[in-house]
Amino acid sequence: MRRQGILPEEPFSSLRPLFHPQSIAIVGASQDPKKWGFHLLLNAVKGGYTGRIYPVNPREKEILGFKAYPTVAQIPEPVDQVILVVPPSDTLRVLQECGRNGAKIGVVITAGFGETNQDGKKLEEEMVREARSLGMRLVGPNCQGIVSTGSVRLYAHMPPQFPESGPLGVVSQSGNLATSIIELANPMYLGFSRIISSGNEADLQTADFLEYLAEDPQTKVILSYLEGIRDGERFIRTVKKVSSKKPLVMLKAGQTEAGVKAAFSHTGALTGSDNLFDGLGQQTGIIRSQTIEEMIDIAAALLSQPLPRGRRVGLLTLGGGWGVLAADYCAQAGLILPDLSKEMVKTLDKILPPWWNRINPIDMVAGYRKGDLIQSLELFLRSKQFDGVLMLGLGWRVVRGGFLRASAPTPQHEMEAAGRDWIEEEQKIFSDVLDLGRRYEKPILLASDMVHLVPGFAESMRSRQVAAYPSLHRAVRAYLGLVERYEVLQRKLKK
Amino acid sequence: MRRQGILPEEPFSSLRPLFHPQSIAIVGASQDPKKWGFHLLLNAVKGGYTGRIYPVNPREKEILGFKAYPTVAQIPEPVDQVILVVPPSDTLRVLQECGRNGAKIGVVITAGFGETNQDGKKLEEEMVREARSLGMRLVGPNCQGIVSTGSVRLYAHMPPQFPESGPLGVVSQSGNLATSIIELANPMYLGFSRIISSGNEADLQTADFLEYLAEDPQTKVILSYLEGIRDGERFIRTVKKVSSKKPLVMLKAGQTEAGVKAAFSHTGALTGSDNLFDGLGQQTGIIRSQTIEEMIDIAAALLSQPLPRGRRVGLLTLGGGWGVLAADYCAQAGLILPDLSKEMVKTLDKILPPWWNRINPIDMVAGYRKGDLIQSLELFLRSKQFDGVLMLGLGWRVVRGGFLRASAPTPQHEMEAAGRDWIEEEQKIFSDVLDLGRRYEKPILLASDMVHLVPGFAESMRSRQVAAYPSLHRAVRAYLGLVERYEVLQRKLKK
Repeated sequence: MRRQGILPEEPFSSLRPLFHPQSIAIVGASQDPKKWGFHLLLNAVKGGYTGRIYPVNPREKEILGFKAYPTVAQIPEPVDQVILVVPPSDTLRVLQECGRNGAKIGVVITAGFGETNQDGKKLEEEMVREARSLGMRLVGPNCQGIVSTGSVRLYAHMPPQFPESGPLGVVSQSGNLATSIIELANPMYLGFSRIISSGNEADLQTADFLEYLAEDPQTKVILSYLEGIRDGERFIRTVKKVSSKKPLVMLKAGQTEAGVKAAFSHTGALTGSDNLFDGLGQQTGIIRSQTIEEMIDIAAALLSQPLPRGRRVGLLTLGGGWGVLAADYCAQAGLILPDLSKEMVKTLDKILPPWWNRINPIDMVAGYRKGDLIQSLELFLRSKQFDGVLMLGLGWRVVRGGFLRASAPTPQHEMEAAGRDWIEEEQKIFSDVLDLGRRYEKPILLASDMVHLVPGFAESMRSRQVAAYPSLHRAVRAYLGLVERYEVLQRKLKK
Repeated sequence: MRRQGILPEEPFSSLRPLFHPQSIAIVGASQDPKKWGFHLLLNAVKGGYTGRIYPVNPREKEILGFKAYPTVAQIPEPVDQVILVVPPSDTLRVLQECGRNGAKIGVVITAGFGETNQDGKKLEEEMVREARSLGMRLVGPNCQGIVSTGSVRLYAHMPPQFPESGPLGVVSQSGNLATSIIELANPMYLGFSRIISSGNEADLQTADFLEYLAEDPQTKVILSYLEGIRDGERFIRTVKKVSSKKPLVMLKAGQTEAGVKAAFSHTGALTGSDNLFDGLGQQTGIIRSQTIEEMIDIAAALLSQPLPRGRRVGLLTLGGGWGVLAADYCAQAGLILPDLSKEMVKTLDKILPPWWNRINPIDMVAGYRKGDLIQSLELFLRSKQFDGVLMLGLGWRVVRGGFLRASAPTPQHEMEAAGRDWIEEEQKIFSDVLDLGRRYEKPILLASDMVHLVPGFAESMRSRQVAAYPSLHRAVRAYLGLVERYEVLQRKLKK
């Protein structure tokens, strides 16, 4: 198999036409709502792209209200970005037209190249040679397109997904997984900066996009789904550099023989480089995850919480079983649950009811009283023995309070008042927790089935003041992500 | 530490008053909406309990419209079940009154017994002795109460949760985890038969409840959260018997030192028996899970799918990346992805477009055409090389179709028709998948972000015709649960 020559690292500016295009052309744009060429145009339009759109189709005068051009060459200005949704056999011709137009970058959606057979591979290589001879760079082929939010509002990808603008940058060698990542970010109220489906990476590679995202001011955390690496050395050099600037959370597929085979047939990716990964994970500063859910969960923690300065966690639980299970998960994840100091026990003896459990996790039992919880939390935060806190079960008083109110026979009934009190108390606790986290600069992660019902929850999540998870194991994994990021930065400092 | 004498295994009938009571008394029932004695009564009433309710409180004439009695002894009939929400120091006196009433079984909600200190432990033992001398059995103490659905409609537990009647039986040594299980069952459309929060298990133990659930006709799958085992031998004997009748999915907490300590302070449970567990898992027929999410997911598969007769899975994916990642998860779980036979490849060459990937996972790529998918699925089901199928990504056409329809400028526009077509096609595929599963008696598990949007999805889930998961790893874990159940039954047959 022949390999593309390795290009020198690209400056930030060369990918600007991809993420900040003044104009885009969609070649293969179609009137037929069953064709991808229709969907790409529709999504770009509906997404509210703020630049100029040029559909290219020799058989149409107008598509979705936009004047259609027979070829790229006939577009009246050089376009920044050309999206190709044409059969593989047409791509070389289209690229030549792009050359005549002066287009800067191409996104090849079309599949049927290097991932299929030797002929496809050859065509892919010719396409890249052609593009380079014209001074163009290429994304894809066999990709889903890209998203760039902020003031650009470019949703030039296949699925009808229009995620909010936000701090997450995504590079994915699978379009489907980019799609799933976007879906999973929704319930966590996370938005995106740039989303790149990189496909076969015939020209531009994951490393190029990671470098861009490392410089991109809107991007605060980078997620990367990877099946294969073309140039291992360049890749390692890049991720080291990127992760020294921003957290880089990566899911490497092809960890098993079955996965490797599937990956090869998917993007023609050379996987089997998992050994390289396992050995270098720590040195490169990557935070590795096993599922895309984990990626999103870790991102939500990184984006809202200060980093813990070690692995020592205080557990505060509003129910015994949650504490037991979370203690297991923490220990299994390599987190440390220090015992409470004698002074902490002495202080808590004054605050908590006589039957309190006197260990870490501190179990507030079902009957936590006004102030108990916040005082206990503050003890953890003040103590030098603890680097952060996991808090379990918040929100159930809102459920109970709501049920009381709904069950009250009259609005004047004391059930109404009691219900309202509980909801207000829980809301107060929630806001006190957020305040304490800020004050002590230690991470507090929440895990609860019901925390999302606390009034103000959505706003706090959206403004990244809190990281809350619907289950214990997800919160523990996210917490570990914070620890891993801290340890990455410590290693860099020590060097 | 003294142990309670081991009782002979109980006949099914002795727990009947717990799950099919004609009448219940709530001692410590209160007018005060901030007290648990109020909530237990409110939940029993709002849950629509079909028997007679007797609140007991010497200071009240009437609570929530029910005549209140000063003591249990003054209730005009022997009550089947007495729920105790009184301080620990009052429990012995209340039990003596129960004796005078002729009550059959007691549920001690109150905490502050064996889980706290030696005095509590002593009181707990006295309480059990007293109950036994009166011919009563006890649930708890330090528990959340019980739920029994069907015609009984008894929701006598602390949280305002009223899960639908259904096939899941739950025994949990943690009330909070029972609560979380109920919440997680909701999005999977699973209902419950009996839910027991067993607390400290001073008298009745997990083993007793498991035995009941094994006989209970409404219960089809049993979930058990366990922190500790009092009588290891009895426990092993019981779970062997139970799992030969019904699938038993168990989450054992206290797997780490941190978890063991937390469990001891929670329910006074003697954990540290994890070695016993690890060694005996397979022999006892338990399906072990690590999270309650897994428990629910496995239950959903067991309740809707035939068992696979081996570990060989066919993967059918509507997007490449999903297939790669699922292949990894399958291999990591010990499932086998056989290659496609030459005949299968030959047949698929006629059905699929020329660029199809020719391996397992079969990638239908984004452009699957009418019939392709179902024919490919049927090949897997017909083949003796495959024991079942995982199908990834169904439902996205509904999203696209819906977006087309919503974007159509007029109802007459072809976008409207195209959108409707896609939704109908996806609905047809979904129903064909269900039909094929039934016809070939092989399991088909679905994993997709969007399958829940297919018209008819909720009904199919509720009637247990399908098992669908919002993520790949959850579907793979559930599939492994089916395999594990098959292997349990095979081992039993071989004996």
